[in-house]
Amino acid sequence: MTPTITAFANSPDEGQGQARDMRVRWALEEVGAAYDVRLVTFAEMKAPEHLALHPFGQIPTYEEDGLALFETGAILLHIAGRHPGLLPADPHAKARAIAWMFAALNTVEPPIVEHEAAGYLEGDKPWHAERMPIVEARIATRLAQLAAHLGEAEWIDGAFSAADILMITVLRRLEGSNLLAAHPNLLAYVARGEARPTYQRAFADQLAVFEGRDQSAEAD
Amino acid sequence: MTPTITAFANSPDEGQGQARDMRVRWALEEVGAAYDVRLVTFAEMKAPEHLALHPFGQIPTYEEDGLALFETGAILLHIAGRHPGLLPADPHAKARAIAWMFAALNTVEPPIVEHEAAGYLEGDKPWHAERMPIVEARIATRLAQLAAHLGEAEWIDGAFSAADILMITVLRRLEGSNLLAAHPNLLAYVARGEARPTYQRAFADQLAVFEGRDQSAEAD
Repeated sequence: MTPTITAFANSPDEGQGQARDMRVRWALEEVGAAYDVRLVTFAEMKAPEHLALHPFGQIPTYEEDGLALFETGAILLHIAGRHPGLLPADPHAKARAIAWMFAALNTVEPPIVEHEAAGYLEGDKPWHAERMPIVEARIATRLAQLAAHLGEAEWIDGAFSAADILMITVLRRLEGSNLLAAHPNLLAYVARGEARPTYQRAFADQLAVFEGRDQSAEAD
Repeated sequence: MTPTITAFANSPDEGQGQARDMRVRWALEEVGAAYDVRLVTFAEMKAPEHLALHPFGQIPTYEEDGLALFETGAILLHIAGRHPGLLPADPHAKARAIAWMFAALNTVEPPIVEHEAAGYLEGDKPWHAERMPIVEARIATRLAQLAAHLGEAEWIDGAFSAADILMITVLRRLEGSNLLAAHPNLLAYVARGEARPTYQRAFADQLAVFEGRDQSAEAD
């Protein structure tokens, strides 16, 4: 049965690929699985029908054969369990890739979300300018540690995996800041991800929704 | 082979059970698995030997049979894969429990960490008092959504699982604030977790390190 994911009817970033359904779209492209997309407005995201799928009122969700999931990490793990191509077969390598999935979401992403929140929640406060370096220093610490681990490797832990999908989409949230500039290897890592045809198909499909070219609300 | 985890040699919270090794200790108690503990100082956490295990220089880590893991979510998933008792056998229920593991770490914990960071990074700033309600409002939103989902259920999604270990230890970080007080069902949920003998053994073992009663640095 073809899974259905949810995505923003009205892209907050105007099609820049930052919305989290990108992660699920990219993963499904990697494994070559078809999927349907149901678009939801901001009002619909907070309505009971959607909250039954996603208790925190966000996108994406993933529905398939009576199963409803939320949280991109969990959705990618689920897809990886159904299709080869997202996690290594070797048990140790697989466990490490899963550790990097959690690291992307629990260690690297939170200060980046904080940086964004400082803009939209506190951008008009008198302390904003003085506070930003504190927020940015926390991101810089994480990026330095990540860059030190990556070194000149192509992907975060051996072969490309779901961990790279999560880490690269997390790092992409820093576009528009200069925080990645200190780490050419991280910039190259993000660029390697964006160069994958699977990423490009996912990006184009998300952009098509924003541009109104995907009236059917279904991916190819 | 008995796994080895790392924990703080010098407990930052003086044995209150907030350090993240509690999650791993609790999970190992739930499955009845023995483990060793290696204590690390703050200096050791930032040294190359530990960074090879944990690229972000934190605790806990988990070593077993040549595998080294970090991130509590990944460690709990790994333990759940080796022992019954931490995740449901039914595939759909298991996928949902994993979604709640990620939700605890990626959706509920980050604003709570932010609340703590506001204290130790910005507690002396002139904006601190005015800013705290903004930070607390974000936590309050997540708690209200979580409380609405939990209702009068005993655990977060059916039977007790690794998701409850993560969610309860995340919510425990709010002790000392009054943010949980608005939700008696969440307070009762945390208390149910703390009442489990497995939790109490894990807590006692972590406290013993702080009190210097565990000089061997090994759990029972």
